[in-house]
Amino acid sequence: MKLLRVGPAGAERPAALATPDEYVDLADIVDDFDESFFASGGIQRIKPIVEDRIESGERRRLEEVRVGAPIARPHQIICVGLNYRDHAAETGQPVPHEPILFTKSPNTLVGPYDDVRIPRDSSKLDWEVELGIVVGRRTRYLSAPNEAGASIAGWLVVNDVSERSFQLDRGGQWMKGKSSETFNPAGPVLVTPDEVEDVGNLGLWLDVNGVRRQNGSTSTMIFDPYFIVYYISQFMVLEPGDLINTGTPPGVGMGHTPAVWLQEGDVVELGVDGLGTQRQTIVRCV
Amino acid sequence: MKLLRVGPAGAERPAALATPDEYVDLADIVDDFDESFFASGGIQRIKPIVEDRIESGERRRLEEVRVGAPIARPHQIICVGLNYRDHAAETGQPVPHEPILFTKSPNTLVGPYDDVRIPRDSSKLDWEVELGIVVGRRTRYLSAPNEAGASIAGWLVVNDVSERSFQLDRGGQWMKGKSSETFNPAGPVLVTPDEVEDVGNLGLWLDVNGVRRQNGSTSTMIFDPYFIVYYISQFMVLEPGDLINTGTPPGVGMGHTPAVWLQEGDVVELGVDGLGTQRQTIVRCV
Repeated sequence: MKLLRVGPAGAERPAALATPDEYVDLADIVDDFDESFFASGGIQRIKPIVEDRIESGERRRLEEVRVGAPIARPHQIICVGLNYRDHAAETGQPVPHEPILFTKSPNTLVGPYDDVRIPRDSSKLDWEVELGIVVGRRTRYLSAPNEAGASIAGWLVVNDVSERSFQLDRGGQWMKGKSSETFNPAGPVLVTPDEVEDVGNLGLWLDVNGVRRQNGSTSTMIFDPYFIVYYISQFMVLEPGDLINTGTPPGVGMGHTPAVWLQEGDVVELGVDGLGTQRQTIVRCV
Repeated sequence: MKLLRVGPAGAERPAALATPDEYVDLADIVDDFDESFFASGGIQRIKPIVEDRIESGERRRLEEVRVGAPIARPHQIICVGLNYRDHAAETGQPVPHEPILFTKSPNTLVGPYDDVRIPRDSSKLDWEVELGIVVGRRTRYLSAPNEAGASIAGWLVVNDVSERSFQLDRGGQWMKGKSSETFNPAGPVLVTPDEVEDVGNLGLWLDVNGVRRQNGSTSTMIFDPYFIVYYISQFMVLEPGDLINTGTPPGVGMGHTPAVWLQEGDVVELGVDGLGTQRQTIVRCV
């Protein structure tokens, strides 16, 4: 399944993708793709209904609606830092021996085509295309990475928008540069694991104003998604619906010489193979 | 008002303290002390009802119930690091020029008398008595610290439990050592601002097995609570019900020579003037 949420921000309706341009509404059988949905086995429950509805139900056109993030605001957003060998090199930092974890405020989550706001006093706004993981069940102390698959509800595209001055020049701890409003475009769809043949070999790309800036593959990740879920579960409890951003390949603005920062009016487009594409316009914060 | 939540973990009922030993139940007028309660002006709405009920309603005995955290699981828990001059010194780190921010997973929140679990592979479990702030309304880009009072729903005691090896020896970013289950005992009560004469002059203390380990005052904070709320609002949006831990005075286990770490069976007692006291037993994680 490819699940999505459509409608005005804050009032999205659950839906499923039927074709690249059409969806079927699920609001009569699902409240939202949120913690209680995932915790109660919602994915398994709706699967036959979704298949039937795609086959014979009323299809609606995607171009007529706003697309929100494919999950409700999660309990937490956890990110992995420097998880691609070449990205660690471009930022001038050593390859980590174990995953670096940091967080974004959950209310940074927005839709894949929503505007990204430049925070006040921002000077170094940057992009990061990433593979995101949605957690499918409460998860603590997994014994091994091969247990992690049962904790994964699906995959999605995320842009881990970052303000490098806030992150690195304003005193300790990266979350300060990761948590401004609109800093986590997600979607358009949550793709269930059965629809992704090999999550370890997906291309990722990001363009700014039509210029290719990032071009990588999940095959160069240092820590794979299953190891990441296993690893995080040693330090905290993951809740159903939590979002994990797994790190970015080379080509962020900070990695260029001279550095390239996003400016008002810039257009960012990004995607991950099989998971869809995003497009954001950079706007002034109001 | 002194608000609290009583009953089994996950099924707490909202209540208000009537005397040090008694409470009045509020479950008929409040669903929970959560984001929608604070966002909808709940504090102001219930005040006359609570006053009347304390005067003439049925009082129940505190000793007969478990006391939970006084707020529901928040959207986020933000912490300020090294916010007391002497604590910065004892950890060997410079006094910060602006607040250091980090997070704890929201599901670390537990009641003030609940057990604290030693995480698996923990070797350096530590304590931190702190003044906590509960955010009362959605807050972004405050113009000045003197606007922050309107964003504060109340004050409470928190223990910012920390695993120093996870925090400092396992690769970047403190949240890894701050987010294990049971790592944020809070309460017993949320005290509304009208009941605290001077939040800038409150004693804080913490004992381990009856030995006084921390003994400080909010008067030695580097950044006061109003500045902290103002400051955070420049980097992210605070939601109603969010929890902010404002940093700890000297005397943490890491600050002793040799360092002192919490062990199974230890009893930690802590308090802040006018906000109540906590007591936790340290237990093995199961």
